[in-house]
Amino acid sequence: EKKKDYSFSNRGKTLEDEINDANEFYIAQDIAVIHKKPIPIQVVKVDYPSRSSAVIKEAYYRTPSTTDFNGVYKGKYIDFEAKETENRTAFPLKNVHLHQVEHMRKVSKQSGITFLLVRFSALERYFYLPFEQLSLFWDRMLTGGRKSIALSEMETSAIEITPKYAPRIDYIKIVNDLNV
Amino acid sequence: EKKKDYSFSNRGKTLEDEINDANEFYIAQDIAVIHKKPIPIQVVKVDYPSRSSAVIKEAYYRTPSTTDFNGVYKGKYIDFEAKETENRTAFPLKNVHLHQVEHMRKVSKQSGITFLLVRFSALERYFYLPFEQLSLFWDRMLTGGRKSIALSEMETSAIEITPKYAPRIDYIKIVNDLNV
Ligand SMILES: [Mg+2]
Ligand SMILES: [Mg+2]
Repeated sequence: EKKKDYSFSNRGKTLEDEINDANEFYIAQDIAVIHKKPIPIQVVKVDYPSRSSAVIKEAYYRTPSTTDFNGVYKGKYIDFEAKETENRTAFPLKNVHLHQVEHMRKVSKQSGITFLLVRFSALERYFYLPFEQLSLFWDRMLTGGRKSIALSEMETSAIEITPKYAPRIDYIKIVNDLNV
Repeated sequence: EKKKDYSFSNRGKTLEDEINDANEFYIAQDIAVIHKKPIPIQVVKVDYPSRSSAVIKEAYYRTPSTTDFNGVYKGKYIDFEAKETENRTAFPLKNVHLHQVEHMRKVSKQSGITFLLVRFSALERYFYLPFEQLSLFWDRMLTGGRKSIALSEMETSAIEITPKYAPRIDYIKIVNDLNV
């Protein structure tokens, strides 16, 4: 079995990779059970070259109707979307899709724990933005306000996650501090 | 918009269809937010005939590492697997995969609500089998015992769901009765 690399550096990893690493750590340590949802794909044509194998020959990506990750922590439902931006001064809200916000609103109404995990990749800074805060910025945009969240606003409305060792992006710590 | 058919009959629907119907009902009524997870597919080759479209030309089904459905009900994490059998006297445990049992065990340890929804299709009977019960039958099999759950055992170890109107398979009622 290959040894897991829980090193401090992100070594060109995507935010999704980093979260997958954290999730593997949480599962291995019995801390939480959280998975990336598969990308929904509409299969149109399948070949069966043999009885046991199937090769998909035509398929299309579908728009996900929910968020990237969900799972359980201490019995509670966790549901979040991961987004990274190269922007150094603001997080553009066009990165978030309407159906994702609507899904998060339903989860929040059902008392689930839901948030956005934002990485400012050029700055190597990470923020946990609770849905309640995201919702305020989203509504501001809908009522004609700015279409992004300024970094300074992120600093006051979100909780910053400082990368550490094992796991590098320990977002469950924030979940625990805020909700449990 | 097409009018939803919440009729009493299952009209040749699969169990998965029936659960999707229930989930639509729960979301529409703000009762719960539960979705079918997409089937994981490994994409090998993609064509881009135009800038905005992508056609997957070669892909393979991967073994799901978790269960069929998950989501939130009253803040609690719900996670279950749906299985149907044509067998009239027992539910064969070969329908359940080891990795699914292992996933459910982790969820249960994390205080999530996890269970099997079983349909005996030839009998039109439905059972909600809590993971704790499934686990006993699973261990019996592993220690050399029978490789199925007898219908009579299902009748005493599981909670039967009697089909009704809107939603036909109201499994959240059982979740509520057992856990909340
Ligand atoms: Mg994302
Ligand atoms: Mg199934």
